[in-house]
Amino acid sequence: MRECDFSIGRFEDIAIVGLGVIGGSIGGALMQKGFENVWGIDIDQGIIDTGVKRGLVSGGSTEAGEIIPKADLVIICLYPHDTVEFIKSHMDIFKKGAVITDVSGIKEGLIDQIESIMRSDLEFVGGHPMAGSESQGVNHAYSSMFEGANYIITPCKSNTKRAIMKVEALAGQIGCTNITRLSPGEHDRAIAFTSHMPHIVALALMSMGSPECLKDFMGTSFKDATRVAQINSRLWGELFMENKENVAHQIQKMQESMEVIKQAIINSDESELEKIMDTASARRGEIC
Amino acid sequence: MRECDFSIGRFEDIAIVGLGVIGGSIGGALMQKGFENVWGIDIDQGIIDTGVKRGLVSGGSTEAGEIIPKADLVIICLYPHDTVEFIKSHMDIFKKGAVITDVSGIKEGLIDQIESIMRSDLEFVGGHPMAGSESQGVNHAYSSMFEGANYIITPCKSNTKRAIMKVEALAGQIGCTNITRLSPGEHDRAIAFTSHMPHIVALALMSMGSPECLKDFMGTSFKDATRVAQINSRLWGELFMENKENVAHQIQKMQESMEVIKQAIINSDESELEKIMDTASARRGEIC
Repeated sequence: MRECDFSIGRFEDIAIVGLGVIGGSIGGALMQKGFENVWGIDIDQGIIDTGVKRGLVSGGSTEAGEIIPKADLVIICLYPHDTVEFIKSHMDIFKKGAVITDVSGIKEGLIDQIESIMRSDLEFVGGHPMAGSESQGVNHAYSSMFEGANYIITPCKSNTKRAIMKVEALAGQIGCTNITRLSPGEHDRAIAFTSHMPHIVALALMSMGSPECLKDFMGTSFKDATRVAQINSRLWGELFMENKENVAHQIQKMQESMEVIKQAIINSDESELEKIMDTASARRGEIC
Repeated sequence: MRECDFSIGRFEDIAIVGLGVIGGSIGGALMQKGFENVWGIDIDQGIIDTGVKRGLVSGGSTEAGEIIPKADLVIICLYPHDTVEFIKSHMDIFKKGAVITDVSGIKEGLIDQIESIMRSDLEFVGGHPMAGSESQGVNHAYSSMFEGANYIITPCKSNTKRAIMKVEALAGQIGCTNITRLSPGEHDRAIAFTSHMPHIVALALMSMGSPECLKDFMGTSFKDATRVAQINSRLWGELFMENKENVAHQIQKMQESMEVIKQAIINSDESELEKIMDTASARRGEIC
């Protein structure tokens, strides 16, 4: 079998379920790459109309039944619980051989649920594009969102090479340059640190009771550290709850990490403080 | 006396002591505004040459004695301890009536030391432009660094209206749009939160022992939260140590703020978590 058999054909039918900022941006990226059958499914016809007008999808419907039965690739861009619900309630109408993927920020519990109900002639391969926006909705979608971003794919034992490589092809087509595979459990442990912790930190900072006129006294470092405090509380409530052990463990580690710095400052331990800063600085230099 | 008497004359001699990324950027902004006598002082002639070549200063010298005696306005862009040392060791040669200011991120201890040695025919007015760069040196200076930034001025009792307004005029000329006055002590308390805490958070995150291949699993939120972990450890060591009580207090508050979130997650208290997120989100929306 040739390598290119695993890619996504230009005329394949691709369904995007949920035309929010992520779904819309994926659609836009695919449309820009010349895919001709990118179909949006959303509960709101106005959102589909906007998606078509903005060139994010070829067309769409509020009726999943009009699109799902023909789709070779289904990209579900809903909240985690809704992702499971959508797959469950449309199980009978997916096209034989279709590959289904998602964009959810948690994986293990979600995939366990999906695997337990999946038809044997379909495959679900979890995916997590590591980019996003603190703004919501189709109006904030843009086709370059994933340019150069990381994309984690979380195959499970039942996945075939064909299905995994199809989702990898999707990641590449939307612009991701760093596509890696992790088990669902490894994904959730890694993400508790790299994604959930920056959000916890931003929330904690904004919860601290700002000094009078915070607006007047902050600089770029505060703005950057708190950008993601403008959060979608329904989505992030689900993500935190579904990953609670890992997130709680990371918060504990972060508190301990801050304690080491606090003690160095209180004890005027300048060499310890310098070591912490030089190590952090070198690490940060390595990752970007 | 007319209001404009407090401003900075186009032909006044302005000295910038230390042509680093901050000093160079201030010089560049003043040059762009048409000031004709902006003089750099640095220990390295090569840096002065670069500053002149890049249009950041009109000229300069490695000998402070060639510039300080003629300067009407002296902007000291050195590390906090060096700022005090520079003023101390050049006290005899400042021009009568000169206004001296700085850009240091801590104020109370610094200003106490400076005030105690200041000649009666000079004035020191503390200033803190709230912008910067994680990159160091004259090559990273750029004239638009302070466009739209905050600038805190920390007058003390002995300062005249003339001197304070001169430093305010400087802040406005380099592009700051939000210029406020605080006492040195109020400044240090506010900054422990708005500036020192984002740096502590970035350091703590980068100290946590990154999971394997952090590079592959992070998104924009992690990058933004850790940008300032690439830190100038000598400068920040001084800032943390000079503001240790306030910084330690803020770290404690941050640990407690994270504890509240951790408990809500552990206890699956979804309504508490939602309240925290919605409050943080609304506050963040207000300040930017």
